[in-house]
Amino acid sequence: MLTRSARALRSSRPLLKRALGARGFSSSDLIPDEPTGPKVVTENVPGPKGIAASKEIDAFQDPRTHVVVPNYELSKGNYLVDADGNTLLDVFAQISSIALGYNVPALLELGKSDQFVKAALNRPAIGSFPPVQWAEWIKTGLLTVAPKGLDQLVTTLCGSSANETAFKCAFMAYRQRERGAIDAPFSKEEMESCMLNHSPGSPELSVLSFKSGFHGRLFGSLSATRSKAIHKVDIPAFDWPCASFPSLKYPLEEHIAENEAEEKRCLEEYEKILIDSKSTSPVAAVIIEPILSEGGDKHASPEFFRSLRLIARKHGAFFIVDEVQTGVGATGTFWAHEKWGLKEGEEPDFVTFSKKMQAAGVFHKKETRPNAPYRNYNTWMGDPIRALQARKMIQLIAENNLVSHTAATGDLLASSLSSIFTSPAAAGKVFNFRGQGEGTYLAWDMASPQMRDAFLGKMRKAGVQIGGCGDATVRLRPMLTFGEKHVEVLAGAVEDVLHAL
Amino acid sequence: MLTRSARALRSSRPLLKRALGARGFSSSDLIPDEPTGPKVVTENVPGPKGIAASKEIDAFQDPRTHVVVPNYELSKGNYLVDADGNTLLDVFAQISSIALGYNVPALLELGKSDQFVKAALNRPAIGSFPPVQWAEWIKTGLLTVAPKGLDQLVTTLCGSSANETAFKCAFMAYRQRERGAIDAPFSKEEMESCMLNHSPGSPELSVLSFKSGFHGRLFGSLSATRSKAIHKVDIPAFDWPCASFPSLKYPLEEHIAENEAEEKRCLEEYEKILIDSKSTSPVAAVIIEPILSEGGDKHASPEFFRSLRLIARKHGAFFIVDEVQTGVGATGTFWAHEKWGLKEGEEPDFVTFSKKMQAAGVFHKKETRPNAPYRNYNTWMGDPIRALQARKMIQLIAENNLVSHTAATGDLLASSLSSIFTSPAAAGKVFNFRGQGEGTYLAWDMASPQMRDAFLGKMRKAGVQIGGCGDATVRLRPMLTFGEKHVEVLAGAVEDVLHAL
Repeated sequence: MLTRSARALRSSRPLLKRALGARGFSSSDLIPDEPTGPKVVTENVPGPKGIAASKEIDAFQDPRTHVVVPNYELSKGNYLVDADGNTLLDVFAQISSIALGYNVPALLELGKSDQFVKAALNRPAIGSFPPVQWAEWIKTGLLTVAPKGLDQLVTTLCGSSANETAFKCAFMAYRQRERGAIDAPFSKEEMESCMLNHSPGSPELSVLSFKSGFHGRLFGSLSATRSKAIHKVDIPAFDWPCASFPSLKYPLEEHIAENEAEEKRCLEEYEKILIDSKSTSPVAAVIIEPILSEGGDKHASPEFFRSLRLIARKHGAFFIVDEVQTGVGATGTFWAHEKWGLKEGEEPDFVTFSKKMQAAGVFHKKETRPNAPYRNYNTWMGDPIRALQARKMIQLIAENNLVSHTAATGDLLASSLSSIFTSPAAAGKVFNFRGQGEGTYLAWDMASPQMRDAFLGKMRKAGVQIGGCGDATVRLRPMLTFGEKHVEVLAGAVEDVLHAL
Repeated sequence: MLTRSARALRSSRPLLKRALGARGFSSSDLIPDEPTGPKVVTENVPGPKGIAASKEIDAFQDPRTHVVVPNYELSKGNYLVDADGNTLLDVFAQISSIALGYNVPALLELGKSDQFVKAALNRPAIGSFPPVQWAEWIKTGLLTVAPKGLDQLVTTLCGSSANETAFKCAFMAYRQRERGAIDAPFSKEEMESCMLNHSPGSPELSVLSFKSGFHGRLFGSLSATRSKAIHKVDIPAFDWPCASFPSLKYPLEEHIAENEAEEKRCLEEYEKILIDSKSTSPVAAVIIEPILSEGGDKHASPEFFRSLRLIARKHGAFFIVDEVQTGVGATGTFWAHEKWGLKEGEEPDFVTFSKKMQAAGVFHKKETRPNAPYRNYNTWMGDPIRALQARKMIQLIAENNLVSHTAATGDLLASSLSSIFTSPAAAGKVFNFRGQGEGTYLAWDMASPQMRDAFLGKMRKAGVQIGGCGDATVRLRPMLTFGEKHVEVLAGAVEDVLHAL
């Protein structure tokens, strides 16, 4: 018997085919032997073997955050296989960090290549001893997806360090601008006071971030993170300012005036903070995610983001777009901020990335290259194998049109979920369905954190690994190979679980 | 014709054989086809191809810190081959981060294994979805070298994040102790104020570090770093305290009383800071390297370090030993702090590692596991392939007795260099030769930063890649497979270059 969503899906298939063009992508193009559906073989997920594996880890490492213990060697494409042999459709994808799928043959082939193996086992200090192929690897890989206007790249190892590298570049460029010339020397007082962590060498400058923003968990990035208290409590922080992010009401088309007023209110508050901070701790950089993800998948209009960027510039603050989670195609454009309609010359100063790119780093402009060497420097400065992996993935994404595929799949998924969420099964349970037009980057709230957690648990038992964020939000983060057949599985499970909830 | 050092070496060979036991390790055991010596084929190093490669990188990335541009695929064992085909004995080893050598067959074999390839291309979010083999990989690898008393491990991606993870653990444990019970709840005021980066939720606590210490370049670790102004200037910093580190005089045996007085002075200053800070920003953790490396290879006595540890405990501060550079055998013990003679119960609270281990992280005690999940958490929490690589290297180090081999090689190298440094060629050029008894972890100062830089350049032209640190220091950081035949090459080049300087 077809579930409601499956029926909805069947009827929307012509739409999808149209959206995908004459020849739609299917995950079997890249992953020929992907499972055809989930299979749950234990009463609970995780089952006894997964629980035993967690317990073994508990001897040396905190297991309280374990969800399932996978067998990565058996997992395939969009399907994660766990220690107990359960096969789960994975729409969380290692916290949004798997772009194409598990054990994609073309990537395994790269992994077996002499080039990759030697790069993996001879890890260089890239800043001082870059591999002779470094320019080629970057020019034919990461640089091909550089956001418009940003042709410089600092590679790092993770998203937090990408953001902190952008902060450092911004602070240096801000102080350099204050000094007036690129070759203006540091004063003796600056050089001495910085060794004591005191001003003026360690300046009273700040990074402005937004309520519910998440930018990492190291000390600088955590000071900009405003997701949850449990992420921040007990850790010393810089006294940096925080601006409100709009709380939009859904469905958007029914709250146009209210939402416009809310965005206007936030923009005014933001500009006031930029002005007021000038007398205490000037804002050297503003950082924002195109969709505030860990904080609960909060969206705002393209116009709102464009205004943020222009107001930052007006007040001399650099503008950092954190695309660690939103980047690499899931929103239906390669970078989520492409939808903001920024004109030439309005580009962000920095765009940071990690997660699905596997490589991490900061795209920027040459004007923010530090004025002296060794200022933004560390031992590894990234990892060549992740640059190689990113290059291969970028090629596969382009060859298979996976960004437009994801845009189309997202439309199909949104329409399928919409019909479920307006049915009686969802009444009083599902709210604020959002992300339409942003590929598969969809989310909704549930009535309570408890209900959200129960929903996630039941989805797992129904064969779907899915993630939460914020207080009571469900977020979808499928891979770019997620397509029509996976929509069917996901929507069917959502509908069944909502019924049973 | 034999150089002086080669002659000195020949005469000390029986000593080495004795030290190495009946069957000494030779790098050819692990790297059968290692070059027999350096070979410089271009007039300058880097040559034209290396310079062209740097220029190509300059289009997108700062090349001013490049030293040479290697061809890692052609490099072997202790020898780095550059873009121009120069073969250099590498005693800098990617800023001290290559443990065994380039393209070691046993490691390449690991790299080609199905297990490694699948682990590389299916990178998990270890904190929530650990691989089913995780406990096995860690128990048979990293945990086998856990410092005494520390049986817990948080894995990270680099040394800076390892140190910041230790800071976070220490801050959480410190506040928990103040609250009085492991399950004491956070107050409403804490939970609200931390979202604004304000006290009490973001507490006024500090990390004490030492002058010339280096602990990384992210915002928390950089606040503890006190190496050079250029590492710190223009970056906002926490107002954390800094204590003096002893300036010992060399040779040690001629300055016993002065050095004791200097260490006593530093201990008194340190304890005073711990006491005074209680009323302003209490010290939650003290961090120190067993040898202050980036800051200029500064040593102190085992008694000094043991006193630091005991005084920290007396004043309620956690004690972090940063073994990012000193760890993994180069000092003639697996961990450098093993030489401090700490008694049971006196172990450090945290030991951090990275670099030569390739994996990075923090060893600690169960009592500093955070009281709630998701407090020390991030997407990747390390990288399984680096855990696999570390496991294999740890096995090879044990099987080949490479730690005791390095202790013996270090003695030979120290005696060989000593005889050069007391010769007329070194007069007025070389000072403060140090690190004897610390394996190959040797260093000396030169008369000026300019002379040091000239020395490093001429050594490169003589076929040896060697590194500096501090203002005018030369530091040796050979791999653990560095042995007698490499000592001969290195000592010969040092002698020749000193003559020509």
